Amino acid sequence: MSRFFTKSLAALQPYVPGEQPQDMQYIKLNTNESPFPPAPGVMKVIGKAEVAKLYLYSDPDCKALIAAIAKRFGLRPEQVTVGNGSDEVLWFALRAFCDEETPLAYSDITYGCYKTWCSMLNVPSNVLPLREDFSVDTGLYRGLKCTVMIANPNAPTGICLPLSEIEAVLRANPDNVVIVDEAYVDFGGESAASLIGKYDNLLVVQTCSKSRSLAGARLGFAMGNPDLIADLNRIKFSFNPYNVNRLTCLAGIAAMEDEEYFQKCTSAVAETRDRTAAELEKMGFDLTDSKANFLFAKSSRIPGGELYRKLKEKGILVRHFDKPRLENRLRITVGSDQQMNALLTALRELGA
Amino acid sequence: MSRFFTKSLAALQPYVPGEQPQDMQYIKLNTNESPFPPAPGVMKVIGKAEVAKLYLYSDPDCKALIAAIAKRFGLRPEQVTVGNGSDEVLWFALRAFCDEETPLAYSDITYGCYKTWCSMLNVPSNVLPLREDFSVDTGLYRGLKCTVMIANPNAPTGICLPLSEIEAVLRANPDNVVIVDEAYVDFGGESAASLIGKYDNLLVVQTCSKSRSLAGARLGFAMGNPDLIADLNRIKFSFNPYNVNRLTCLAGIAAMEDEEYFQKCTSAVAETRDRTAAELEKMGFDLTDSKANFLFAKSSRIPGGELYRKLKEKGILVRHFDKPRLENRLRITVGSDQQMNALLTALRELGA
Repeated sequence: MSRFFTKSLAALQPYVPGEQPQDMQYIKLNTNESPFPPAPGVMKVIGKAEVAKLYLYSDPDCKALIAAIAKRFGLRPEQVTVGNGSDEVLWFALRAFCDEETPLAYSDITYGCYKTWCSMLNVPSNVLPLREDFSVDTGLYRGLKCTVMIANPNAPTGICLPLSEIEAVLRANPDNVVIVDEAYVDFGGESAASLIGKYDNLLVVQTCSKSRSLAGARLGFAMGNPDLIADLNRIKFSFNPYNVNRLTCLAGIAAMEDEEYFQKCTSAVAETRDRTAAELEKMGFDLTDSKANFLFAKSSRIPGGELYRKLKEKGILVRHFDKPRLENRLRITVGSDQQMNALLTALRELGA
Repeated sequence: MSRFFTKSLAALQPYVPGEQPQDMQYIKLNTNESPFPPAPGVMKVIGKAEVAKLYLYSDPDCKALIAAIAKRFGLRPEQVTVGNGSDEVLWFALRAFCDEETPLAYSDITYGCYKTWCSMLNVPSNVLPLREDFSVDTGLYRGLKCTVMIANPNAPTGICLPLSEIEAVLRANPDNVVIVDEAYVDFGGESAASLIGKYDNLLVVQTCSKSRSLAGARLGFAMGNPDLIADLNRIKFSFNPYNVNRLTCLAGIAAMEDEEYFQKCTSAVAETRDRTAAELEKMGFDLTDSKANFLFAKSSRIPGGELYRKLKEKGILVRHFDKPRLENRLRITVGSDQQMNALLTALRELGA
């Protein structure tokens, strides 16, 4: 920290993203990327003609992109906004709907950025414990007088709440926004987007990083009633009006329009996940019921940190969180069948 | 505003970007884009092979891009960081170096986002008046006990401070960060980047949107001593670690490496600017001495708002700010020679 850094953020703990080795020598199962390339239409639309137009700003209103997302979800354009990854969209939501008097409620085990963002924004955290089996006890999410954040499926557990429980939380907090972070919903969860017409306090946030194979393009989006969306746009235009670049707008449209490819990729990931989970269980691993594109696995024989390091030595990167209740587990991205076979072989060789 | 929006930001006034009509029917001289396409290397590097890799995250440390920028400016990589446009980088700097006790000092006539960001971050503004001729009186920037923001050249005036005056401000505020926003420096100004080794309180921010023809890619960067850069990275990693997408990283590297194309484009813009300014002066316009890629012009015959509207009717978009001291002026982006000829013809037809 320099001597100029604001004292008000002295305690800020930045998020530590998963390792991103740039030499590509690892089997990368640590940041929940898709094993599939973007939809063929993405490759088609980003050609010389569009690259040549990069001297022009992107549309700050992202009209065409928002129209494509709205169409895909059966919404109106004013019910959708977009950001430079869902991290940015979620941060906009925290900035819009939380403050010193309106804390953010979230689970003790969930996406680490929620805590970091609260710290950055001077927003108090109301941290609610998961049950012993890592499931969310929505009974705790009643009349909280907090903005509520629920990752569904949750990370790094992969466990999904049924829509009925999300609805119960929405009804129990009618005067606060309930943000459902659906980064991983497309691999087996049920999106709350269908409830948007029914609850004015519901904000659904999704990303194109996982199920739409666009992690490197950075595109996230929020869906909710037009007033909530206008609030997010007010933050966006007070921060970085041209937040989504030209090529990502085009990539997002192409990805949204290819429903068949999307279904094919997400089904393939779900199948590979379930097959890998069954194999790991046979080997004695303890697993949560993940509906996401990752597994949350505990070896009965090798502690988590040690297994992470041994896999890395064998050229396989997974994610290990050195935190209470998580330290003996690994979050393993569901890659291609070939990658998962390599993982299973390595685990067998290690006696895990 | 929804009933859920934080009361703490009730007064927030979002920035209004220049119109971005998506149908391309206008001669667009309103957002200071380059009239030239990106460097040929940009077109070469963004090909199918790289688009196919969009399923992978970008490097959160942007190592290769930062190395290219550092090399171009004769700096070390730890003296550079990057963002999703210079708006984001400048916002990171405000978040890092301002707070309720450390206001931001800036000119009363300058880039509108400074005020918006202060409002969003609850940072007091210390607004210092320009002289009657729109020049910055650096005598006012002494011992301010504020973080200082100087756009050099300033917007929308285009007027440049010599490096000696920037140095005087740096020396007069040794315990505060002085941010020099050099969005427009490459068209005739002198960058303060050469002073980075000498002043630990200097942060220089540049953008690839103007002089490097990459407005639509969104890329800005900050240069300063390693401690200041680490502070900015602390904010970045607490907000949106993967803030620069894969293709923009590649485009930025290619743009940085083609010094010849950069020189050719910026010289051409400067020549067109000076020729257009001479023509406008002959027609009776009052102009500032702009060293930027725009002119700040006042017709002796037609009020600013009226002239803006009449030009729009003729298919030419310029920027008009309906604010005291600015209301009779237009900010006109320096486009291609052909575009500027069309502008001059239109102005003559209008009797301006």
